[in-house]
Amino acid sequence: MPVEIPELIIRAVVITVSDACSTGERKDTSGEVLVHLLNDLGAEIVAKRILSDDQDPLADALREFADWRNVNLIVTTGGTGLGPRDNTPEATLAVIEREAPGLAEAMRGETLKLTPMAMISRGVCGVRSGALIVNLPGSPKGVRESFAVIAPVLKHAIALLEGSPGGDLH
Amino acid sequence: MPVEIPELIIRAVVITVSDACSTGERKDTSGEVLVHLLNDLGAEIVAKRILSDDQDPLADALREFADWRNVNLIVTTGGTGLGPRDNTPEATLAVIEREAPGLAEAMRGETLKLTPMAMISRGVCGVRSGALIVNLPGSPKGVRESFAVIAPVLKHAIALLEGSPGGDLH
Amino acid sequence: MPVEIPELIIRAVVITVSDACSTGERKDTSGEVLVHLLNDLGAEIVAKRILSDDQDPLADALREFADWRNVNLIVTTGGTGLGPRDNTPEATLAVIEREAPGLAEAMRGETLKLTPMAMISRGVCGVRSGALIVNLPGSPKGVRESFAVIAPVLKHAIALLEGSPGGDLH
Repeated sequence: MPVEIPELIIRAVVITVSDACSTGERKDTSGEVLVHLLNDLGAEIVAKRILSDDQDPLADALREFADWRNVNLIVTTGGTGLGPRDNTPEATLAVIEREAPGLAEAMRGETLKLTPMAMISRGVCGVRSGALIVNLPGSPKGVRESFAVIAPVLKHAIALLEGSPGGDLH
Repeated sequence: MPVEIPELIIRAVVITVSDACSTGERKDTSGEVLVHLLNDLGAEIVAKRILSDDQDPLADALREFADWRNVNLIVTTGGTGLGPRDNTPEATLAVIEREAPGLAEAMRGETLKLTPMAMISRGVCGVRSGALIVNLPGSPKGVRESFAVIAPVLKHAIALLEGSPGGDLH
Repeated sequence: MPVEIPELIIRAVVITVSDACSTGERKDTSGEVLVHLLNDLGAEIVAKRILSDDQDPLADALREFADWRNVNLIVTTGGTGLGPRDNTPEATLAVIEREAPGLAEAMRGETLKLTPMAMISRGVCGVRSGALIVNLPGSPKGVRESFAVIAPVLKHAIALLEGSPGGDLH
């Protein structure tokens, strides 16, 4: 008999990774778009941060938020490109315990139908301390398009992380 | 002048990775489906095992079977999801000498056309000691759909592993 | 105000990785095809080499060329399959500082529409010392088909590597 699962609540942290946004030189439109998209899924926004592109402070923030007991999702925007200051994938790889390559592949593969630029995104997805970490591109458009790809499975993915049964049975 | 290649025989090990199946609580339908699918390709089933989701014993089994001289394929089913006990990709990464990411990408990419859940599968494919190791999802449906993606290239892939020429010439 | 970017020039190194070509037993058609394709993009060919499938000398060559100040692209052909002598992905992984998985995924994903053999290609793409390193398959056909996938973004990708702004804003 299937176990009854209480309705999952996404408790998310949004991190904008951008030198220009962190100094106030650029408005953090992408982070705001992301908050709206998460709210549309019924998510509670536990924290929202704007960080520079420095790799180590970003890795520290990812580690700290993932280890918070009330956080089950961390979404970053920015720093996934090929520029010398694009360090988000490396910061993410440094903290995740397990990679979830299918999420990143699907975001790139589906948005490749919209723009060839999708193939230069280097975003990583993975799990630490029961929190899913997802790297999204830096532009509002990239955020919307990539988020739309994973939105249909996000609640289910997080429910599995939290130990809900049937994880492997697609 | 091309070398004449004797007809390749797939000599496969099937490993079901599931806490519930290993205790007998659940019937190993997926493992049986996999045996049938391999038989349809003319494969000889060298061994079939049911293991728990524990990572280290699974890695030990993968290592041992890959090192058997008469095994050129190991297919696992189960343990590829996002649950806390889904350790098959990590066990596989711990033992492979070389990754074959295109097989895993293709299985996810093609089955994504059937279900968005495909993107949360974390299966890994790679090579150890001349044996190809392939992680499939845990459900019979997932096994059938994913296996259908790689079946057309499986014999060719294994022939290349065994040193048949022309490996890189697609 | 956006910075004015001078027109980017691709300065490429072409490396054919093939035991048979390195001994002169096989003509290096793929390397020649690659030179033509790069010329069509306006690239300057800084060097062209034919190496055996030995992993360490290949890694040394990749490292050396990437560290040349006037090289911003290194394209290899060959050694990406599943054969025992296919070491190009491992040599590349040994030298890159950052992986660009979307380029390899896109080449496999798009050429999979042409041939199922695309899924056994193990090519890796990544960055070292401001140079993009791209692994292509060994056959002239594979080179043409895979190169066609990345050609539309190649200049933009290299401009980003060199610090042009907007890298993350697809």
